[in-house]
Amino acid sequence: MFFASDNASGVPAQVLDALAQANAGFAVPYGNDALSAAVRDQIRATFEAPGAEVFLVATGSAANALALSVLCPPFGAVFCHRLAHIEEDECGAPEFYTNGAKLTLVDGADGKMTPGALDAALRSHGGSLHNVQNAAVSVTNITELGTLYALEELRALTDIARAHGLPVHLDGARFANAVAALGCTPAEMTWRAGVDVVTFGGTKNGLMGVEAVVIFDPARAREFQLRRKRGGHLFSKHRYLAAQMSAYLEGDLWRDLAARANGHAAALEGVLRGVPGVRLLHPRGGNMIFASWSAEADARARAAGAVFNAHDADAPGRMAGRLVCSWNSDLAGIAAFADALRGG
Amino acid sequence: MFFASDNASGVPAQVLDALAQANAGFAVPYGNDALSAAVRDQIRATFEAPGAEVFLVATGSAANALALSVLCPPFGAVFCHRLAHIEEDECGAPEFYTNGAKLTLVDGADGKMTPGALDAALRSHGGSLHNVQNAAVSVTNITELGTLYALEELRALTDIARAHGLPVHLDGARFANAVAALGCTPAEMTWRAGVDVVTFGGTKNGLMGVEAVVIFDPARAREFQLRRKRGGHLFSKHRYLAAQMSAYLEGDLWRDLAARANGHAAALEGVLRGVPGVRLLHPRGGNMIFASWSAEADARARAAGAVFNAHDADAPGRMAGRLVCSWNSDLAGIAAFADALRGG
Amino acid sequence: MFFASDNASGVPAQVLDALAQANAGFAVPYGNDALSAAVRDQIRATFEAPGAEVFLVATGSAANALALSVLCPPFGAVFCHRLAHIEEDECGAPEFYTNGAKLTLVDGADGKMTPGALDAALRSHGGSLHNVQNAAVSVTNITELGTLYALEELRALTDIARAHGLPVHLDGARFANAVAALGCTPAEMTWRAGVDVVTFGGTKNGLMGVEAVVIFDPARAREFQLRRKRGGHLFSKHRYLAAQMSAYLEGDLWRDLAARANGHAAALEGVLRGVPGVRLLHPRGGNMIFASWSAEADARARAAGAVFNAHDADAPGRMAGRLVCSWNSDLAGIAAFADALRGG
Amino acid sequence: MFFASDNASGVPAQVLDALAQANAGFAVPYGNDALSAAVRDQIRATFEAPGAEVFLVATGSAANALALSVLCPPFGAVFCHRLAHIEEDECGAPEFYTNGAKLTLVDGADGKMTPGALDAALRSHGGSLHNVQNAAVSVTNITELGTLYALEELRALTDIARAHGLPVHLDGARFANAVAALGCTPAEMTWRAGVDVVTFGGTKNGLMGVEAVVIFDPARAREFQLRRKRGGHLFSKHRYLAAQMSAYLEGDLWRDLAARANGHAAALEGVLRGVPGVRLLHPRGGNMIFASWSAEADARARAAGAVFNAHDADAPGRMAGRLVCSWNSDLAGIAAFADALRGG
Repeated sequence: MFFASDNASGVPAQVLDALAQANAGFAVPYGNDALSAAVRDQIRATFEAPGAEVFLVATGSAANALALSVLCPPFGAVFCHRLAHIEEDECGAPEFYTNGAKLTLVDGADGKMTPGALDAALRSHGGSLHNVQNAAVSVTNITELGTLYALEELRALTDIARAHGLPVHLDGARFANAVAALGCTPAEMTWRAGVDVVTFGGTKNGLMGVEAVVIFDPARAREFQLRRKRGGHLFSKHRYLAAQMSAYLEGDLWRDLAARANGHAAALEGVLRGVPGVRLLHPRGGNMIFASWSAEADARARAAGAVFNAHDADAPGRMAGRLVCSWNSDLAGIAAFADALRGG
Repeated sequence: MFFASDNASGVPAQVLDALAQANAGFAVPYGNDALSAAVRDQIRATFEAPGAEVFLVATGSAANALALSVLCPPFGAVFCHRLAHIEEDECGAPEFYTNGAKLTLVDGADGKMTPGALDAALRSHGGSLHNVQNAAVSVTNITELGTLYALEELRALTDIARAHGLPVHLDGARFANAVAALGCTPAEMTWRAGVDVVTFGGTKNGLMGVEAVVIFDPARAREFQLRRKRGGHLFSKHRYLAAQMSAYLEGDLWRDLAARANGHAAALEGVLRGVPGVRLLHPRGGNMIFASWSAEADARARAAGAVFNAHDADAPGRMAGRLVCSWNSDLAGIAAFADALRGG
Repeated sequence: MFFASDNASGVPAQVLDALAQANAGFAVPYGNDALSAAVRDQIRATFEAPGAEVFLVATGSAANALALSVLCPPFGAVFCHRLAHIEEDECGAPEFYTNGAKLTLVDGADGKMTPGALDAALRSHGGSLHNVQNAAVSVTNITELGTLYALEELRALTDIARAHGLPVHLDGARFANAVAALGCTPAEMTWRAGVDVVTFGGTKNGLMGVEAVVIFDPARAREFQLRRKRGGHLFSKHRYLAAQMSAYLEGDLWRDLAARANGHAAALEGVLRGVPGVRLLHPRGGNMIFASWSAEADARARAAGAVFNAHDADAPGRMAGRLVCSWNSDLAGIAAFADALRGG
Repeated sequence: MFFASDNASGVPAQVLDALAQANAGFAVPYGNDALSAAVRDQIRATFEAPGAEVFLVATGSAANALALSVLCPPFGAVFCHRLAHIEEDECGAPEFYTNGAKLTLVDGADGKMTPGALDAALRSHGGSLHNVQNAAVSVTNITELGTLYALEELRALTDIARAHGLPVHLDGARFANAVAALGCTPAEMTWRAGVDVVTFGGTKNGLMGVEAVVIFDPARAREFQLRRKRGGHLFSKHRYLAAQMSAYLEGDLWRDLAARANGHAAALEGVLRGVPGVRLLHPRGGNMIFASWSAEADARARAAGAVFNAHDADAPGRMAGRLVCSWNSDLAGIAAFADALRGG
């Protein structure tokens, strides 16, 4: 009954094995080793983007903030959803890495920016030197509310960005969950959909702490490298990041893990739909469910040992939770959780 | 014959084992798990500092820059040796994390600040609002030239800092090598010697990528936490940092690994002293040797497969290298290297 | 018919005279001259705040951003109205001076934050280290929409800030207009109302370019000085700022000028109310009026030479303008403008 | 006997007149007024640079820091003399405006970088992503020690910068004094000598507070505008900066004022050479003299009312001072000062 976060799960055996294997002998540091080079090539192949530049970092906040730092000047604005991780959960990392740019918040139901809201926001800002300049758009898929942008929805947003001359960043902390849910290729959800820079998340999907930033326009790569180093995010013993990512890519493990997590969430959704008084708050896109229930049900679930983050409820007197499934979620726990909510 | 850097070495089996062991089940993220808490206590015990605050990060640059960011305001100056890692090798990470503070450089032979030079530098700066304010002193032990501050030398520097009202940061990327060489305790080389914040390095001494920042004055801890998060250095899956550090502390593995690395360097020094034409450039303090030799010897060593970073030579026509030993350096390689230099 | 901005007006003769008078002889620089010291005392007297620290700068953006920089750390958030000058018109100066803090936007009709909206915003942010920390509240009086907070309204906001442990900044670009409209004292609208730092504007009210930052808690003063210098805002020939401010304070010229500007705006409001089809969009608080009219009226006014900034209209097909009066606005122009709107 | 600084002097009558004249009527703000446009054209003409972009700010620190901010990224280094104003006297303004770039200090006698020292510094830094990148060279003429670079000396430095691919900033706080001393044109000391951006100082040479930043490559202009606004340095009532600068340019008043200041310093030098025991410490380039004398002479001069900044003396027991002359220095005071030093 552990649904607090996918970053609370462990890693599959392949990752431990890869670390052990990479451990032999000496390896030149800072990503100049053979394994790191091979991983960069693997990622280029995975994204069908032979000209892309690839960088590994260890946290999602670093990946996002560094990506934005090469897209947005200090006097710029990044447009994102009001609930975006970069706005809500990074303690100002984007502002820090961009040296003081502004996040301009766009609304939209279910954690998704609507094209109209994005366009209106872009039209109503910028243009004068009295305010910051529109600089980039950042989209998250799957979103912070667990919902999914379809490819055409993503394209609608990137088209608007393009029409305003702005590059697009995709926060892919749960990239794999989105791709697995959409049944598309990484290329289809990124550069073919108008994305310029993507953070390809590994940490929430079975790695210890590795994210790849994939920059489709190599002109921004040198600056990224310098900013990564300056941010303290260039690992000397790079092979241990590369080893994890290599295992993740091998045989599309990343997609398999995400499909499993999504499957667990689908199962959870299924049983929750059968529990009287439980309401699903947003359409499930991948491995996260937001649901509400009575205060009594909440107390029963907590008492039974369920672990999850509280969420804003949909009505007074009710309680709500964010339920996140992982590749290794426990099916028995899912059933037990539903039972606890349902009560005696 | 690999002497390029201690960050090119692997990790001992204990570290892999600890990762595997920590992998079981779910763990609450961001350092709130039991293992992370236990490790913080272990470090407090190791430093005999029950009131200290302890933070794990993954790179030395992050550790140093974050440490300085809570000691030095944007309008401050950090005094350090001209060759300090924070000045030479971090692409401006201290300036980034402090939001634009200044590093004021102090000279001294063999990579060591002299008390006189530090005092003179502190006296000749600050005081007026027309320049940045003296804010902190940063010392490295062992130094970037592989030399060692004795405890009384360290104390002489911290006394001067104290006399100027400034806190002291100790860059301990090779902390273990210094402690092993000095035969002292961690407390003796830190708070008992007047150090306020130390970065207790693990990465160069057998971990994949973990450094602990130990802050002896807990008043600075909350700000550190926020800056760490904002810098993208708060690992969600914290247990994997903690696991490595736990293995490192267990049975003083850290000291054992460092003693081995120092021992290898002592052996290397021994054989080099027997090679005609080789000159040792600085007194060896731990696991690093700087030496020069003829161009012919250099070519022979490189041709034989020796890997090391070139260094400024002591005379025209000569070549020099930085030779770094690790816990798992190869004694056969040491002999072979000397043979290659010797030629014939 | 010039209503574009109060920063387009000239200065009264007293200011030119004061500059000429201050020009004699040599004066030690950087605010250490006798005139600057006297002006600081005058401001303390004006605010009935003998312990306050006073700093002169030359622009409102500098005054605001520097004030915020001593109230809000890089990892903090400043809460302000969505239309605040610091958000809309300073090209990110607050983010620059705070080294990347966030402005969190609060809604409210007529450019005024409501206590409820402020409280809700403060309650829904901060508290966790995953996001920036609530750090300060910034209020503007009169507001960007020309409306006025009554003293009790101001107090309601500062009470909420205080309840959350936050200091309050008052953007007083049009401080004099507000005080003149309220018929209160500077003390009543600042520290007696719970304001910690005020920018006492002069530029929009008859000076060439001088604003005073008044910090009621002197503990923040040294940092302010350093940040002012570092921002390039410490004038060497300080006497020329001081001379302007001295004239401004002398005999309460500042209040007299503001009363004149407010009076012109009252006259303008009066005539506009008599023009068919003209709608006043917000209650007038001081010297600014926002009004809408037909496209034909707009064209007539422009054709007749009226100069004003366009504003968002209240209905499709209509036009709107921001009309700002100055101490030296032209009463004939006011009549002519109304005539032009009215048409033949 | 006032020699403390040229920023302690007043302004000539032409400047007061220009302010009074510019005061009539309304003027659109932010530099969009006719006078500001005319002044920009005047400066382009003065520098024989029709394509240059010109920006007015009010302080030298702002001018320098903003200029550097468009030449040097956060991960860059500016090379300048160890005693440069940007290093010694701006409380880190360059670091602030560049968001944390580094100043790398170059030595050279008499406050002047030698080509060899500059070249050596450039060669020994940069190149790797482990440190900041060489980004710009900043030269001051006349220097902080009052000495003068001849045009060929300046060219030697800019040639080296060019060979390293770096742009050159000229800190022209005393630009006029240098041009007057060299007998050259503004063009000859700037773009014809390889300078990319110059801060054309007015404040120390008879204005209240105006400096022009002249950017010969207009590609950098938009960014400069945004950074100026963001720094709080875009004056709304721009006409009052423009009016001062207009008077300064009219009939080459700037050159005339500088020639007068230089002449006063020449006179002072002349009499000091006749005072036994006085030693001139650096070759005089313009309006500043550094000299030493006995402690007794120092006490006599101070007692007689001489005002000057103390300077490091050339020998134990001696005292030294920086003596700065202005356009309106007092010839009687010069004689009196010499008499006081001489004693008896």
